[in-house]
Amino acid sequence: MKKLSLSLYLLIFAFIFPINAQTDKETINSIFENAVTDYTAYEQLRYLCKNIGPRLTGSPQAAAAVEYFFQELQNMGFDTVYLQETTVPNWIRGEKEVARIISSQFGTTEMHAAALGLSVETGIKGISAEIIEVKSFEELAKLGEKNVKGKIVFFNRPAFTTHYQTGAAYGGAVEQRTWGAVEAAKHGAIATIVRSVGTGKDFYPHTGVMRYKEGIPKIPAIAISTNDADILSQQLKAEPGLKVYIRTTCKQRADVKSYNVIAEIQGSENPNNYITVGGHLDSWDLGEGAHDDGTGVVQSIEVLRLFKELKIKPKNTIRAVLFMDEEIMQRGGASYAEQAKRNNEKHLFAIESDGGGTLPLGFSIDASDQILSKIQSWQDFFIPWGIYSIRKGGSGVDVDPLKGYSIALGGLIVNSQGYFDLHHAPNDVFEMVNQREMQLGAAGMAALIYLIDKNGLE
Amino acid sequence: MKKLSLSLYLLIFAFIFPINAQTDKETINSIFENAVTDYTAYEQLRYLCKNIGPRLTGSPQAAAAVEYFFQELQNMGFDTVYLQETTVPNWIRGEKEVARIISSQFGTTEMHAAALGLSVETGIKGISAEIIEVKSFEELAKLGEKNVKGKIVFFNRPAFTTHYQTGAAYGGAVEQRTWGAVEAAKHGAIATIVRSVGTGKDFYPHTGVMRYKEGIPKIPAIAISTNDADILSQQLKAEPGLKVYIRTTCKQRADVKSYNVIAEIQGSENPNNYITVGGHLDSWDLGEGAHDDGTGVVQSIEVLRLFKELKIKPKNTIRAVLFMDEEIMQRGGASYAEQAKRNNEKHLFAIESDGGGTLPLGFSIDASDQILSKIQSWQDFFIPWGIYSIRKGGSGVDVDPLKGYSIALGGLIVNSQGYFDLHHAPNDVFEMVNQREMQLGAAGMAALIYLIDKNGLE
Repeated sequence: MKKLSLSLYLLIFAFIFPINAQTDKETINSIFENAVTDYTAYEQLRYLCKNIGPRLTGSPQAAAAVEYFFQELQNMGFDTVYLQETTVPNWIRGEKEVARIISSQFGTTEMHAAALGLSVETGIKGISAEIIEVKSFEELAKLGEKNVKGKIVFFNRPAFTTHYQTGAAYGGAVEQRTWGAVEAAKHGAIATIVRSVGTGKDFYPHTGVMRYKEGIPKIPAIAISTNDADILSQQLKAEPGLKVYIRTTCKQRADVKSYNVIAEIQGSENPNNYITVGGHLDSWDLGEGAHDDGTGVVQSIEVLRLFKELKIKPKNTIRAVLFMDEEIMQRGGASYAEQAKRNNEKHLFAIESDGGGTLPLGFSIDASDQILSKIQSWQDFFIPWGIYSIRKGGSGVDVDPLKGYSIALGGLIVNSQGYFDLHHAPNDVFEMVNQREMQLGAAGMAALIYLIDKNGLE
Repeated sequence: MKKLSLSLYLLIFAFIFPINAQTDKETINSIFENAVTDYTAYEQLRYLCKNIGPRLTGSPQAAAAVEYFFQELQNMGFDTVYLQETTVPNWIRGEKEVARIISSQFGTTEMHAAALGLSVETGIKGISAEIIEVKSFEELAKLGEKNVKGKIVFFNRPAFTTHYQTGAAYGGAVEQRTWGAVEAAKHGAIATIVRSVGTGKDFYPHTGVMRYKEGIPKIPAIAISTNDADILSQQLKAEPGLKVYIRTTCKQRADVKSYNVIAEIQGSENPNNYITVGGHLDSWDLGEGAHDDGTGVVQSIEVLRLFKELKIKPKNTIRAVLFMDEEIMQRGGASYAEQAKRNNEKHLFAIESDGGGTLPLGFSIDASDQILSKIQSWQDFFIPWGIYSIRKGGSGVDVDPLKGYSIALGGLIVNSQGYFDLHHAPNDVFEMVNQREMQLGAAGMAALIYLIDKNGLE
C-alpha cells in the first residue's frame, strides 16, 4: 500500500492534532470574540430590567427574578440547575417619601428623597423639626446633646472624588449613611438626612442600607440628592434654625424564604471541586438594578454559556451563582458558604462581578502572594482585551464568606468613573449598559476561570 | 548671630526649595486631581451641546460655536486668543429624509434614514427603484451593469465587531459609505443605501461624509439604521425585486469663510516653539456632536485651564486649537499646518482628542522609535490614572497635516466600546458624556504635554 487514502490521512491528522488542541491564546481570544458578538446576556439583562424591574430583597419582583433565571438556565441546558434556600429580610419602602424645606426666606422647597433601607418610618404624619448640619461624627459629638436633641441631623460630607477609583470616594462617605442614625440618636436627634453617597451633581437620591444598634433609639433616616443637599446647606447658612419636614412610611416585615439560583457545568476530572462566578439577583428599588447588579448576574451566566458554546470541557465544576440579598443582609452569600462547607466541597476560586457592567480593567485577587504571582503570569493573555491590572485586593460581599475556605477569591475590576453616579439611584437603568463592555467583563472572568481550571492555583 | 530668625529660616528654605519645586509625580497627580473635581469644561460642553447644538461645517451653528469659544477663551484669560481663517464647504441636509420599503408581502416600511454628507439630492419627487443588496465592491463588480443598472444598490456589510478596538470594525466597513456611490454609479446604479457604519443594533441612522469621483455620475446616497438594514435584507430575501422609495433634498452651496479658534499660554523660554492640543468644533447634525467632538474641544481648553490654574509655566507655547471642518473636507487642519509652516513655527508636538470623551487608556504616538521610547519611559506617571498603553500609531485627522513638520504627533486613546454606537448619529448627546472620564482624558493630555514641555522630545 503505497498511498494512504484521504480519510486515513485525516484520521492520523486528527489523532496527532486533536480538534481542541487550540493554544490557550486562541481559546482565550475565541472567548472574547464570541462574547462581544453575542447578545444572549444583554437580552436577559433587558428582560430583568424592563419586564421584572427593581427587585428588593424579599419582594415579589425578587421572587420573579428567581423564577425567570431558574427557567432560563434550564433552557440553556446546563448540567445542573437548582435553587438554594435562604431567608431574607423584607423591608418595604411604602409611599413616595416627602422631604421639604420650610424656609421663611426661600419658601418651600421639595427635595428628592428616599428612605434608607431598614429605616423605620416617620409615620404618615411625618416629622417637622429644626435641622443641624454636620460633616463628620466628630463634629456631631462636639455639638453634643444640647445642640442636637430634638433636631434632625443633616450629614453633608461629600464623597471626595480626587481618587481615580471612585470606590474610595464612596468608602470615605458611606459611614454617614450606614451609621449616621445611630450616631445622631446617641445625642438625642429625632431623624437624619444624609447627602446621597454618590459622585454626581444631580437630583437623584441614592438609597442604600443603614443599621441600628441595640440600646440606641431607632430614628428614621433618608437620603436626599447631592443637589438638594447643596440647596439645603445654602438655605441653612442663610437661615439658621431652618426647619425640614420629612415623611416616610417604610416598614420592616417578617423575614421571608428566598433563593440563590445556581447552574453548573460539571467538571470532567474533579466534579467535586468548584470554581464559582457570581453576581447578585436582588437590587435596590429606585432604578432597575441594571449595573447593580443585573450585569453581574447575566455575566455569570455568560461565563457558563461561553464554556458550553465553545465546547470547553472544564476539569472542575464551574458554577454560576445568582446570589440573593446582597444589598441588605447578605444572606445569600452566607448561605452559599455554609452549604459549601457543610457538603465538604473543595473550592478553588470564587469571583464576583458587582462593580457595574462597565469596561473591565483588571482583577482583584484575594490570595497568597504565590497564587497572585501565578495569576499575574497570565497577564499577557488579557492585555489585548484591555485587562491590564491583576492586583492584590478584596473580592466581593457575596463570595467573601468563602474566605479561608476557597483557595482564592477574586473580583472583577471595571471602569468605576460613572458607577457612583447611578449606584442605588433611579438612573441605574438598562440603557446605561453597553453590551460590549459588559460582555468583555464576562469574557475576562471566563478566560481567568479557564486558566485556573486548566492549570490549578497551587 | 547664633540664632536665625524664623523668617530668615523660611527665606532660606524657600530659596533652596522653591514653592513650585514639586516633583513631576506631584505635579501630574495635581493635574488629574484638579481635573476630575472641576466642572468648567463639562459646563462648556453642556452649553455647546444644548444651547448651540449640532454644528455642521459652514452652518450658522458652527459660526455660533466659533463665537462662543472665542469669547469664552478670552474670559478665561489666556495669553493670546485669536481666530484663524479657513474656507469650508457648505452642504445642507434639507428636509427630513424619506426611505420607504414598498413590499407587496410586508406592506410599507418606513426606515430611519439620513443623507450622507456631500451627497446630491434625489429631489422633491424622490426615487423609486428596485433594490439590490451587496456586501462588497467585489460582489458588486461581479453583478455588473446587467444586474445593477437602473437600481438602488444596498451596501449591507456589517461592521465586524470581534476586535477589541471598535475603530477596526468601523474601518472595515466605512468604504461602503465613502465610496459606495462611486462604485455603484460605475455600474449604472441610480442611488445607494448604506447600512449605518456603527456597532449598535438600533434604529439610529449614522451619517458621515461620502465622496464622488470626476467622470463618474453623482448619485444620491443615504444611510439607514442597522435594524432597518436587517429588515430590508430580510424582506428582500423573501421578495426579490423589492422596491424602495427614497427622497432627499440636500444641497451643496458655495464655500463659506470660517475659523479655527486658537488660545495660547506663552512659553517662558521658547515662545516660538509650539505644543498643540486640539479637537474639532464642527460636528454632524443628527445629534449634538457631544463625543464627536465637543469633548475634544473642551478637553483642549481644559489642558490650558489646568496649566493656568496650577500655575505651571511652560517653557514652550501651549496652544489649544479648536479645528473647523474635520467632518467634511478637513480644511481647518490643513489651514493650521499651512499657517504654521508659513510662519516658520517650530512644532514639538501636536495631540488630538477625537475618539470620544470616554475613559482614557493610552496615547498613540506618531514619531521615531527613539522619541516613542522616551515617552514610554514616563509610563509610570500615568498608570495610577488608568493610562497604561503608550504605543506607536496614528494621531488624528486635524493634526496629521503637521506630519514631518512637528517632531511628534499624538492621539488620545480612549475606551472605544460604545463610540460607534453613537458616532455621527442622533444619540451623540451631552447626556452620554461622563464628566470624570472626559476630565481624565484632558488631564492625561495635560500631563503628557507637561512632560514633553519640560524634558523635550529629543
